[in-house]
Amino acid sequence: MLRLDASQGDFEDRFLELLDMKRENDADVNAAVAAIIADVRKRGDDAVVEYTKRFDRLVQLSADTLRITTAEVDAAVAQVDAELVRSLELAAERIRDFHRRQLPESYAYTDAAGVRLGCRWSAVEAAGLYVPGGTAAYPSSVLMNALPAKVAGVERLVMVVPTPDDKLNPLVLAAARLAGVDEIYRVGGAQAVAALAFGTATIRPVDKIVGPGNAYVAAAKRQVFGAVGIDMIAGPSEILVVADGANDPSWIAADLLSQAEHDTAAQSILITDDAAFADRVAGAVEGHLAVLPRAAIARESWEAHGAIIVVPDLEAAVPLVDRMAPEHLELAVADPDALAAKIRNAGAMFLGRYTPEAVGDYVGGPNHVLPTARSARFSSGLGVHDFMKRTTMLGCDADSLRAIGPAAVALAGAEGLSAHGLSVALRLNLPRG
Amino acid sequence: MLRLDASQGDFEDRFLELLDMKRENDADVNAAVAAIIADVRKRGDDAVVEYTKRFDRLVQLSADTLRITTAEVDAAVAQVDAELVRSLELAAERIRDFHRRQLPESYAYTDAAGVRLGCRWSAVEAAGLYVPGGTAAYPSSVLMNALPAKVAGVERLVMVVPTPDDKLNPLVLAAARLAGVDEIYRVGGAQAVAALAFGTATIRPVDKIVGPGNAYVAAAKRQVFGAVGIDMIAGPSEILVVADGANDPSWIAADLLSQAEHDTAAQSILITDDAAFADRVAGAVEGHLAVLPRAAIARESWEAHGAIIVVPDLEAAVPLVDRMAPEHLELAVADPDALAAKIRNAGAMFLGRYTPEAVGDYVGGPNHVLPTARSARFSSGLGVHDFMKRTTMLGCDADSLRAIGPAAVALAGAEGLSAHGLSVALRLNLPRG
Repeated sequence: MLRLDASQGDFEDRFLELLDMKRENDADVNAAVAAIIADVRKRGDDAVVEYTKRFDRLVQLSADTLRITTAEVDAAVAQVDAELVRSLELAAERIRDFHRRQLPESYAYTDAAGVRLGCRWSAVEAAGLYVPGGTAAYPSSVLMNALPAKVAGVERLVMVVPTPDDKLNPLVLAAARLAGVDEIYRVGGAQAVAALAFGTATIRPVDKIVGPGNAYVAAAKRQVFGAVGIDMIAGPSEILVVADGANDPSWIAADLLSQAEHDTAAQSILITDDAAFADRVAGAVEGHLAVLPRAAIARESWEAHGAIIVVPDLEAAVPLVDRMAPEHLELAVADPDALAAKIRNAGAMFLGRYTPEAVGDYVGGPNHVLPTARSARFSSGLGVHDFMKRTTMLGCDADSLRAIGPAAVALAGAEGLSAHGLSVALRLNLPRG
Repeated sequence: MLRLDASQGDFEDRFLELLDMKRENDADVNAAVAAIIADVRKRGDDAVVEYTKRFDRLVQLSADTLRITTAEVDAAVAQVDAELVRSLELAAERIRDFHRRQLPESYAYTDAAGVRLGCRWSAVEAAGLYVPGGTAAYPSSVLMNALPAKVAGVERLVMVVPTPDDKLNPLVLAAARLAGVDEIYRVGGAQAVAALAFGTATIRPVDKIVGPGNAYVAAAKRQVFGAVGIDMIAGPSEILVVADGANDPSWIAADLLSQAEHDTAAQSILITDDAAFADRVAGAVEGHLAVLPRAAIARESWEAHGAIIVVPDLEAAVPLVDRMAPEHLELAVADPDALAAKIRNAGAMFLGRYTPEAVGDYVGGPNHVLPTARSARFSSGLGVHDFMKRTTMLGCDADSLRAIGPAAVALAGAEGLSAHGLSVALRLNLPRG
C-alpha cells in the first residue's frame, strides 16, 4: 500500500506514479483467438461444438443440445433459495426502474426555413450477452447487462455461458429468466463470441455483444468489433473513497476491501484530510483481512495497488479525483452533494456515509458495469444508450431546398465536389455549381 | 455496376455477395505508427517537430511555431470569399441548432425506499479534432466535428491539421474559427494523434480524439484508444437511394455519383420498383460521368461497387435496407415518412424527392459523420453524446440502506464476495453475511 501526503514536495511525482501504475498483464492470445474465430466462421456449429467439447469437457454435446432448454432453466431455477430469488427480484426491479429513466427521446421539428428535421432513437435488433462460467459467474452481472438491453427494446437477447463439466449455475439462469433473456447457449470463450458475431446454423448472429470475460473473450470481442458493436473492454475494478475523519474506519476499510477482494489487480484508494483517520483505516484493513475468506486476494491487491492519500482539506481532493477518474467514487463526507458537484470524472458516485459501493453492485439501481482505468474522463457506464442508436432525419421540399440549397452548392464547389453541387443544383434549376 | 432483381432465384446469394463486398485495402502501418507514438511519448515536442519537418517539409519549424497563431488565422480568413463565409455561417448555425436539441438531460429523484438516485451528463474536458491536409481538407467536416463538441460544453477543443509545404487552408481555418476551436497546431499524421493523446510541452493532452484521417491516422487512433476516447474509424462512404419511377432519373443519378466521386472505394446503390426507371438512371449516370470533373474516381467507384436492385414493390426494399444498414439513405418516394417508419437501420435518412444527400453534407443540420460498413445496425452518427459522459449517483441514509441493504448482503453471500457483504452489514449492524 502506497502512502502519499499532498503536502510533501515529491507528491506530484508520486501521484503520477500512482496514475501510471500498471496492474494488468495482458496475455497475448490474439493468434489463438483469430484461429478460433476463422474456424467458427468456416465450419459454424461443428467448430463451436468441437471447441466446447474440448474446453468444457462436454463429451455428449451436439449442435442439437447447444441451447439450454426452458426445461433445464426451470429445473435449475427451482433449486434457488427463495430469499435469493426475492433479492434478485428486488435488484431487477430497481435496475429496471433506474434504466427506464435513461430512455432517450426522439425528436422532430420543422424549422423556420421549412426544413423537416429529426433524430430517432431505435433499439439494436439483437444483442448477445457473454456470461463467464465458474467462479466469475455473477448473477448480478447478468441483470446489469441484460436489463438495459431489454429496457432499450432489444427484441432478441442471446446469452452465452460456458458450463464446464456440464454444471449449470442456477442463480445465473434465474437472473437470466428474470431479465427476459430470450435464448441461452452453453458455449463460452472465443468460439461463443465468434458464433454471436457471425452466426451458425443454430446461433443466429447479433448486432452487439456485451459482457465481461477472460483474456480470450476480450481479444475475441476486439477482433469481431466492426462486424458487431461491443461494449467497453473492462479493466480491473477500482474504488476511490474520499472520507473525512468522522467516519467509522471499520466501514471505510470494508469498502476498500470490497474492491480488493475481486482480483489481485483491483485497486482501492482512500483520500482523507485526516492523517490519524488514515492510520485507523489502515489498521482496520488489517483487522478485516484477518477474518475475510478472500483475504489472500484482497491482501495482494491492497499491498500491491492500494493507496492512502492525505490531503490538507477535502477541496484538495477534487483535482486528484478528476485526474484519477475512478470507476467507483465514494464520498463519505458530511456534505457529499457539494463535493459531488465539483467533481467532473467518475463512473458512479456513492453519496454519504451510508452508501457503501457494494450496495450499488447489487440493488442500488444504477449499472455496475463502469469505465475503468481513467476512462471515466470520456466514457460512461453501461446503459440503455448502449443498446440503441440514432438515425437523423432531413426533409426538404422545393421551397426549403431553395432556401438552404445554394449554400450547399457554394460549399461543394469550394471543396471540389461537383456531383454534390450538381445533385442540389439540378433540383433548383441552378447553374451546375 | 451490379444489377440485381429480387424476383430472380439467385437473388439471396447475389445480395449476400453485395453485402460482403470488400472495398477497402487496409495498409498495415501498425508498426510504423507504434514507433512514432512511442517516440512522441518519449521525446515530446522534439519528436513532433522532427516528424513534421520531415513529412510536411516545414524546414523552419520549431516547438515555438507549432501553434497556428491568431494572426495567421486572421490573415487566412481574410482571403475567403464573402459568399463562402456566409455559406459557412449558415451551415454552422443550422448544425449548432440541430445538435443543441440533442443535449441529454441529467435527472435526479428519490424513490419510494428513500434512496436518492441520479444520472448526470457532463462534457469531456478537452477534445482533439484531427483535420486532414491537402485535398481531403473539408471545411464542412471541421464544422461537423467541432460544433457538437462545443455544444456539448467541451472547454478546450484542439485542432491539428498538417500544412504540407507550409500551405494553410483558409476555408478550414475559417470553419475552425466559426466553430469555436480553441487551439490549432500545424501537425498531422500519427505524431499529431500521439501528441493529443499523451501531450507534449506545447500540446497539452486531450481526453477524446475525433476526425477523419488516412491509414496512419486511423491506426494511431486505434492504438491510443483506451488512453483517450476516439470516435468511430470511418470506412468509405456509402449511399442507398430508394426511388420510385416518378423521380427524375438525372437527379437520382447525380445523388448516386455524389457518393461515388468521394473515393474509388465509395459505394452507391439504387433500389427501385421500376425496371425501366433503373435503366434511365443507369443512362443518366453515364451522361453525368461524361462531364463531371471527378469522373475518373466516380466511374471507378460506380463500376466496381455500384449496384441497382429492382424489387417487386417498395415494401420489399425494407428488409434489404435494414440488412445493408446504409450510412446515407435517400427515400425519393411519394410517402417517405411511411417508408422511414418501417426502416430500422440507417445512419441518416433523406426524405423525399427534394432532399439530395449532399444538402445534408453541408447545411441540413444533422451530422455528416455517420456509421459506415453496416455499423448503423448498432452505432450512430457523431453527436453531442460523443463529447459527454454519464456519472450515476446513488445515496442511501440509514433507513433506506436498511430497506435495500439486506438483499445486497444476500446476493454478495451467494456470489462469495464477503467484503461486499461486510461493507453493508457493518452499517446495518447485521450479522456479517
